[in-house]
Amino acid sequence: MVKQIDPAAVTLAAQRIQGIANHTPVMTSRTLNQLTGREIYLKCENFQRVGAFKFRGAYHAVSQLSAAQKAAGVVTHSSGNHAQGLALAAQLLGVQATIVMPEDAPAIKKAATAGYGAHIVTCPAFDRDKVCAELMATYGYTLIHPFDNWDIIAGQGTAALELFIEAGDLDLLFVPVGGGGLISGCALAAAQQGAGCRVVGVEPAAGDDAGCSWREKRITTLDAVPNTMADGLRTRAIGERNLAVMTQYVHDMTAVNDTAILETLKFLWQRLKLVVEPSAAVALAPLFTGHYTAPGQRVGVILSGGNADVAALAAYF
Amino acid sequence: MVKQIDPAAVTLAAQRIQGIANHTPVMTSRTLNQLTGREIYLKCENFQRVGAFKFRGAYHAVSQLSAAQKAAGVVTHSSGNHAQGLALAAQLLGVQATIVMPEDAPAIKKAATAGYGAHIVTCPAFDRDKVCAELMATYGYTLIHPFDNWDIIAGQGTAALELFIEAGDLDLLFVPVGGGGLISGCALAAAQQGAGCRVVGVEPAAGDDAGCSWREKRITTLDAVPNTMADGLRTRAIGERNLAVMTQYVHDMTAVNDTAILETLKFLWQRLKLVVEPSAAVALAPLFTGHYTAPGQRVGVILSGGNADVAALAAYF
Repeated sequence: MVKQIDPAAVTLAAQRIQGIANHTPVMTSRTLNQLTGREIYLKCENFQRVGAFKFRGAYHAVSQLSAAQKAAGVVTHSSGNHAQGLALAAQLLGVQATIVMPEDAPAIKKAATAGYGAHIVTCPAFDRDKVCAELMATYGYTLIHPFDNWDIIAGQGTAALELFIEAGDLDLLFVPVGGGGLISGCALAAAQQGAGCRVVGVEPAAGDDAGCSWREKRITTLDAVPNTMADGLRTRAIGERNLAVMTQYVHDMTAVNDTAILETLKFLWQRLKLVVEPSAAVALAPLFTGHYTAPGQRVGVILSGGNADVAALAAYF
Repeated sequence: MVKQIDPAAVTLAAQRIQGIANHTPVMTSRTLNQLTGREIYLKCENFQRVGAFKFRGAYHAVSQLSAAQKAAGVVTHSSGNHAQGLALAAQLLGVQATIVMPEDAPAIKKAATAGYGAHIVTCPAFDRDKVCAELMATYGYTLIHPFDNWDIIAGQGTAALELFIEAGDLDLLFVPVGGGGLISGCALAAAQQGAGCRVVGVEPAAGDDAGCSWREKRITTLDAVPNTMADGLRTRAIGERNLAVMTQYVHDMTAVNDTAILETLKFLWQRLKLVVEPSAAVALAPLFTGHYTAPGQRVGVILSGGNADVAALAAYF
């Protein structure tokens, strides 16, 4: 098992991204509190730069590279928010980013990423690790892994750190889980700043590998990418650094199906007027649908992003 | 012409609704500032109770009634946000509200209003004034007019007052105009708190009666309800109190067509992650589409509400 990092790494990361990442608002709702019987504090990372928390970790990770690494450039594989987060972070730090995307990634995502000045390399989805490795060998690029990277983890944790500082003591913190970067950082933030707060990871029921991995203390890998509307959480396995942090610092894991995700998403759009993506609705779904009944009055929820396809989702409204 | 009120009425109204109306957030966006070349401060009344600024004026107006008036009850005609605002305000103050709605009002709006404990009376749209008058004569109800009422005007102005206090001096303030309640209050707030700020009213081009009325200093009435996607601004004329305030305190009026409204709405949803209704997009449209070119670096915009029909609007995305 990998060596742990000190939870204080999140505080350092917060200092490094201050004034560059958005300090996103914490929102509350009388209606939501009445419906759930709790006091809920929504950390709105849909208002983060590039529309998702991913910018925090990406900026932090690139900022920590050596001068030689920065000069050589960075690479990652992603068709989602990490791609845009890394592209913008690299642009701001004067570093060339190359993003490996599957051939069938939507044109709009390629264009958005290229708009931040990144090079886009497309390949068949199953070849992406190989293509990344070749680019690293040929050009000396540094891989910025989407979640299995300590600087990424510490950067993502700053979202929860800001929430604890602004909302005060919390009894529960709900965080969506894909590869485990966000929850690892948030759990470290809770260990640092959230005395007594229980950290709960939430993943789509269609791909509950993270819960299995957390319970069994070893990584479970799905045979295929899970089929869920929460497109930001379609990962087959968490990383080894994520397993190490989650085993020590996460208190519970739960899962929600797409019906619950959609019901929660509709409420967030229609009643709370927040455009969030399905992966963000995942974190609120256990409380909103009432299936999570463990005690805890003051509850934080990380609304991880807002990069939703409005036209496609509205078909379900 | 009616007698004016002192702009300080807005400050008094703010004290009376404090802790009951939401102090809504002011949001900014690097992307929006880059696109427009200005510093824009968005006052997000889509996060107000009932999803629109209308709660401010409604609560203020009902709170100012005498004990006898409160005991007798209130009435208004509206199928939109004023109906829900008045219903909730009355419920909170223990007053019975009766809302006259057109027969063809959407069932969902009737249900939402009834959900706050109001009585719903339906009638043909052209009979609504007569039906209101009959209810007042029979039951002694007090009419809470949606915009031609000093307490409504002062209450709506608290949105701009909060914005001036939070954002500091502004060069321009853009406000959507239907019946003129919001802009009247906001213009009074600017006179009170926004030294040097020019107040600009924006209405749908399909119904630019308010601009005509403001220029000619007398009320212009449209022959028919204007055909625009900005459903909150489908009024045939402003009120006489609104004309009096606008003539004295509003500095400019402009209009935007539905293409501009839709383009702005899409940006607010997709890029800024804010669910706003078309009437709110109206206020930002002159800057977003670049058709308003008068100078002014620091600019406030009142995003008036968020009660949008997601499914219907998303068909245009």
